[in-house]
Amino acid sequence: MSKALRIGVAGLGTVGRGVVKVLQQNGDVIAARAGRRIEIVAVSARHRSNDRGVDLSSYRWYDDAAAMAADPGIDAVVELIGGADGAARRIAETALQNGKALVTANKALIAHHGMALAALAEEKKVPIRLDAAVAGGIPIIKAISDGLAANRCTAVFGILNGTCNYILTQMEQTGRSFADILADAQRLGYAEADPSFDVDGIDAAHKLAILSAVAFGARLSFSAISITGIRDVTPVDMKYADEFGYRIKLLGIARHSAAGLEQRVEPCLVRKSNPLAAVGDVFNAVVVEGDFVGRTVYEGRGAGEGPTASAVVADLVDVARGNRTPVFSIPVRQLTALQAVARGALVASFYLHLRVLDEPGVIAAISESLRDQEISIENLVQRGEASGGGIDVILTTHETREDKLITAVDKISKLRTVLNRPVAMRMIRA
Amino acid sequence: MSKALRIGVAGLGTVGRGVVKVLQQNGDVIAARAGRRIEIVAVSARHRSNDRGVDLSSYRWYDDAAAMAADPGIDAVVELIGGADGAARRIAETALQNGKALVTANKALIAHHGMALAALAEEKKVPIRLDAAVAGGIPIIKAISDGLAANRCTAVFGILNGTCNYILTQMEQTGRSFADILADAQRLGYAEADPSFDVDGIDAAHKLAILSAVAFGARLSFSAISITGIRDVTPVDMKYADEFGYRIKLLGIARHSAAGLEQRVEPCLVRKSNPLAAVGDVFNAVVVEGDFVGRTVYEGRGAGEGPTASAVVADLVDVARGNRTPVFSIPVRQLTALQAVARGALVASFYLHLRVLDEPGVIAAISESLRDQEISIENLVQRGEASGGGIDVILTTHETREDKLITAVDKISKLRTVLNRPVAMRMIRA
Repeated sequence: MSKALRIGVAGLGTVGRGVVKVLQQNGDVIAARAGRRIEIVAVSARHRSNDRGVDLSSYRWYDDAAAMAADPGIDAVVELIGGADGAARRIAETALQNGKALVTANKALIAHHGMALAALAEEKKVPIRLDAAVAGGIPIIKAISDGLAANRCTAVFGILNGTCNYILTQMEQTGRSFADILADAQRLGYAEADPSFDVDGIDAAHKLAILSAVAFGARLSFSAISITGIRDVTPVDMKYADEFGYRIKLLGIARHSAAGLEQRVEPCLVRKSNPLAAVGDVFNAVVVEGDFVGRTVYEGRGAGEGPTASAVVADLVDVARGNRTPVFSIPVRQLTALQAVARGALVASFYLHLRVLDEPGVIAAISESLRDQEISIENLVQRGEASGGGIDVILTTHETREDKLITAVDKISKLRTVLNRPVAMRMIRA
Repeated sequence: MSKALRIGVAGLGTVGRGVVKVLQQNGDVIAARAGRRIEIVAVSARHRSNDRGVDLSSYRWYDDAAAMAADPGIDAVVELIGGADGAARRIAETALQNGKALVTANKALIAHHGMALAALAEEKKVPIRLDAAVAGGIPIIKAISDGLAANRCTAVFGILNGTCNYILTQMEQTGRSFADILADAQRLGYAEADPSFDVDGIDAAHKLAILSAVAFGARLSFSAISITGIRDVTPVDMKYADEFGYRIKLLGIARHSAAGLEQRVEPCLVRKSNPLAAVGDVFNAVVVEGDFVGRTVYEGRGAGEGPTASAVVADLVDVARGNRTPVFSIPVRQLTALQAVARGALVASFYLHLRVLDEPGVIAAISESLRDQEISIENLVQRGEASGGGIDVILTTHETREDKLITAVDKISKLRTVLNRPVAMRMIRA
């Protein structure tokens, strides 16, 4: 057996502890698969004194993770600090500059600086591995760049944020509001004190940018992603989605076609027969479509100590085996700046939730606005059961261009009889 | 870019044609991912004259595939002939003996001779890749040996045969009999003229043996697999399974625990909430459980030109990249002969279908036989609606050891009032 791969772990939070546990418990089988042992030689975190429930006594301790990243006794650095800049970025750059492999679970870092880091890694002829950054324990980056390597991918989409999926699942099951469930989730530790990264869709968008690069060979462009979070989803939407045969999921959707690259994160109504609809709680799932393989689906835990550590250590196995596949599947200079599809050009069916005054002519005015944009109504439900002023009108449309829908909704929202900012959500019918 | 990987394709049926198409259509993106071009230089099939709908004019033609496998101008041989012995085995051995990489979609060959071939490959320091042999386009071998490399796997199970899944889905949707649907499937080309390999579970068992080796490091032992096909599943079973909240699926199930290795292929009742229950038609799906990652699920097309060719070419990319991972994830000499769990030791809930005379005391006699084995009944349904002599009694049990069930069913089948050979199926509740 070759000599061990010596690693340094920067960051000893949930995932860092998990990585230590995986390597301590499964070291023998991992060595058999990797062809050599993977040995932690150093660790780094902000506070040495914390009791982390794992034995760190045989590892060198670094207060300064960047110093660890320069340690000549280390072959690969595992960056588990998080954040697009600051310490994480410094460690990543230091590791690569010093000719070390980099394994990271940091989607923000990669979504914002992945191209520069990949270029540096190629210059230094060392690998970056980041499967843990997307969908936790699901080996989705490897699935696309290795398992589906024969295909031109046409679409990648899925449930990429476990916190949002947990909140939406709870809303669906309890009928309670977003704010209530979020407060619970924060108490239980499923959501951060500042939940914005998760519930506003930013975390999912970081992951989607990475998936687009790997699947389509697209240059990373976080700013090209249209992002809508889940704050505006209400119990009423949950109820009618269910009645129409759908579930509401926050999806990241990337599609590559002759029209260009579509990249969006938004809550969608997903038909119950779609495999994504059945994915509840903190689970993640990703659908990848390729020109020869057709549709494939990958599901598992998207976060947490064990699943994310599983992905980090699988990446270390990859490094230990000497695999030199480029980080985004092809060399960074070959990534292409794909033209973004204009937001309004999307063709889809939509769900619309309006709160209106219960008086004559309301439905007529709404349906005229839709007709003027040649939007055809599929379902319309009005029930006299709303609380607190006004009643709910729910409708779904046949396929239409989104800019037409936006024009119609703009007009509808200005009607005296319409009380809310209308909620519009895309429907995934297949 | 390094020089091209030169390949020879043996067998130009559905999958062989697919491989040619993939490499002709997607050659550029495949080269970008592989780091070099993958070039077909030779092909071989039984009949040169057939029009295969692809342009083969620029490739050397071999009537004798084994001669092609010895061609010094070829780096990797793709074996798509099929069958555990004969030409396929000869070509595989010749390729390895001559120091060439082997890529195969042949599960029978690997299930029966995989250990010897792997040993030869290791001796010659060349790779074997076989992801196309299991679950078609789903990159399940890579998912386990690369993506989940950090885990001790505890279970691998799933829908591994598209023909059976198609037949069962059709039976469920139409209420028609196995024989009727099989005849249709044969007319449509979804089932072979001799359907035994598929419907008797042998094909699924070949795949399960390979999955066990990769997931658990188990020595291949096809004969250790307990195999039951789908011929005995009736429309009555379909109907009651649905009523109880289940679907009937042919599953391959491998579990590794302190008790040893369980390997079975059999029709099971799968609860509708289980992701496998929603997998219909010719689709395959595999669940893999690991100690850190938890449960992960992989779904896609399990057969056909495009999906299987996608897997073959992904394996060629792996070879072109110089990946040297052992064929069963660890070196063949490190594979362990795992103790098989005795069939009777399985603990599960069971579904039981009896056809009985409609007279007093029948249910009493049946329930006594179960009670004598300490088997507790969960549901019992008797309806006076059977055709042709006798009525159907359907019951489900709470968890019991299988040997107790077998003893009880033996006794029940000898009752004068029981008219059929009772059908017992395992229930998957989670």
